[in-house]
Amino acid sequence: MTAALSPGLGDTLGSVGEQGVLARIFPRLPAAASTVLGPGDDAAVIATPDGRVVITTDMMIHGPDFRLAWSTAADLGWKAAATNLADVAAMGAVPTALVVALAAPADTLVGFLEEFADGLREGCETLAPGCGVVGGDLSVSDTLTIAVTAFGDLEGREPVLRSGARVGDIVAVSGRLGAAAEGLRLLFALGAPDAATAAQLKLTHPAQVAAQLRPHPPIADGKAAAMAGATAMLDLSDGLAIDARRLAAASGVALALSGVTAAELAGGEDHSLLATFPAGTLLPGGFRAIGAVVEGDGVLVDGRQVTGGGWDPYSGWDGASG
Amino acid sequence: MTAALSPGLGDTLGSVGEQGVLARIFPRLPAAASTVLGPGDDAAVIATPDGRVVITTDMMIHGPDFRLAWSTAADLGWKAAATNLADVAAMGAVPTALVVALAAPADTLVGFLEEFADGLREGCETLAPGCGVVGGDLSVSDTLTIAVTAFGDLEGREPVLRSGARVGDIVAVSGRLGAAAEGLRLLFALGAPDAATAAQLKLTHPAQVAAQLRPHPPIADGKAAAMAGATAMLDLSDGLAIDARRLAAASGVALALSGVTAAELAGGEDHSLLATFPAGTLLPGGFRAIGAVVEGDGVLVDGRQVTGGGWDPYSGWDGASG
Repeated sequence: MTAALSPGLGDTLGSVGEQGVLARIFPRLPAAASTVLGPGDDAAVIATPDGRVVITTDMMIHGPDFRLAWSTAADLGWKAAATNLADVAAMGAVPTALVVALAAPADTLVGFLEEFADGLREGCETLAPGCGVVGGDLSVSDTLTIAVTAFGDLEGREPVLRSGARVGDIVAVSGRLGAAAEGLRLLFALGAPDAATAAQLKLTHPAQVAAQLRPHPPIADGKAAAMAGATAMLDLSDGLAIDARRLAAASGVALALSGVTAAELAGGEDHSLLATFPAGTLLPGGFRAIGAVVEGDGVLVDGRQVTGGGWDPYSGWDGASG
Repeated sequence: MTAALSPGLGDTLGSVGEQGVLARIFPRLPAAASTVLGPGDDAAVIATPDGRVVITTDMMIHGPDFRLAWSTAADLGWKAAATNLADVAAMGAVPTALVVALAAPADTLVGFLEEFADGLREGCETLAPGCGVVGGDLSVSDTLTIAVTAFGDLEGREPVLRSGARVGDIVAVSGRLGAAAEGLRLLFALGAPDAATAAQLKLTHPAQVAAQLRPHPPIADGKAAAMAGATAMLDLSDGLAIDARRLAAASGVALALSGVTAAELAGGEDHSLLATFPAGTLLPGGFRAIGAVVEGDGVLVDGRQVTGGGWDPYSGWDGASG
């Protein structure tokens, strides 16, 4: 239980109850243009005019995935939206809707969930206008847990898989590399998680801290890449080095990169898009070339094989929360 | 951390790592006939030939939602499937796919997750053949947490809402009433959660315990009700009394029931289907009449208004797990 969750002032989830909390949250959630039937029945219904729907799900857990000394409730709502939207975009799809399940201690302030809903709305409106929340679930848990499932429309296109890269393709990236990890490094350098010094860091290093707490993945570039003929794509959740190796392995090729720094290779959580395009493609949106697809396996930077890296939740978490 | 999660023998999530665990779980998961693209990329893709998709999401949390002294990992997989399938069925839809996110302590045995996958498969194969798991997420958490999102196909029909009941309709139910709650009462009567005495109870009261730990909601009767012209429907998660009041309130009518006992009214978690049908309808599948829709509000049993009841996660959980 942390100060941010329950400073002892105001209505709590326990005092207001599930139905009362839902009544206060619903008006703050973003509406989805795809909604056929929204919250309030046993299930929601969304339109899937393509005849297929893209689906991705991801959990954020207090401790291994975020610290409440650093992230506001609105930051968490934004990041929960952004990370899932990036997975939809990485298929070349347009995000259409989210469902959001949240479990929190009974003494959590209702205001915390209202701010979380505000962050979800701001994230959707900024990153994927038209995408909104169509349903969810509210539960009690000792561990604040957020589970988002996101949906996307392929608009008649084939999904862009990790496995389609071909020798000779351009390797390109859209979005930042290493900024989120640099923000995390600065936050951890503060020592014990502490809201006051984190607030100070938000003033002195706003870009790095925002990259970690409120990432801005280039969602629209997912569709743009697909329309430009991208042969393979994924979102960089665990860092360029490990995610590029995943794309290379799935495609049975090697990626030869140049001009990327060690920090850009190692840093995770930017949720930028890594894609491959046929040689000669005019790169769309914010994509910039960082290499070429070659025969072999793994990832080469300036000719040298890249090894190591990668966050595993079971070995990577030290058990602390804060 | 409980004995069931980590008896100190065998591979754990921490020793095997996320990718290794996924490789051992995937082969045990049920396949979905709707799969266009299964696990392994940034997102899954399922077919939605109707042009709409039904979506519901629900979390199960260690402590408020289950005890590991009572439930095996396979029981949890089954129940996670069953409860979500029932929400899809309650819309008159046919379940097509699930995505499953699971967060567990790092010292959880891999075998626990394998058994969980087996339970998911058995639940899907028994209750909704053709429905399977198309994706998921694996995370670390001090609190074992299961978040399932389920999908359904309306097959061209309109969804059956809670709000469509009309005066003169038959009120009917398919599935058991009060059995899951009786199982829970018997389990709690054992005193402190204890695996040995729970095992004994499974021998002496198998039906009641199974109703609580491995519910059998009548999934196929959701479609059958829709095809028979059901005007309203919901799944009985919180008990007949409170869920019937929800249907009555959404429809702006009262439900006059007869011949139901206090235990049948109060007991939750059966995930049976409550539906209303036009007078004269030949009730489909396992539906049996329990009353009629009348003018007014709320729920009457043998002429008397029913009050009270209803589980609220924030006030209803005593904080214990076990």
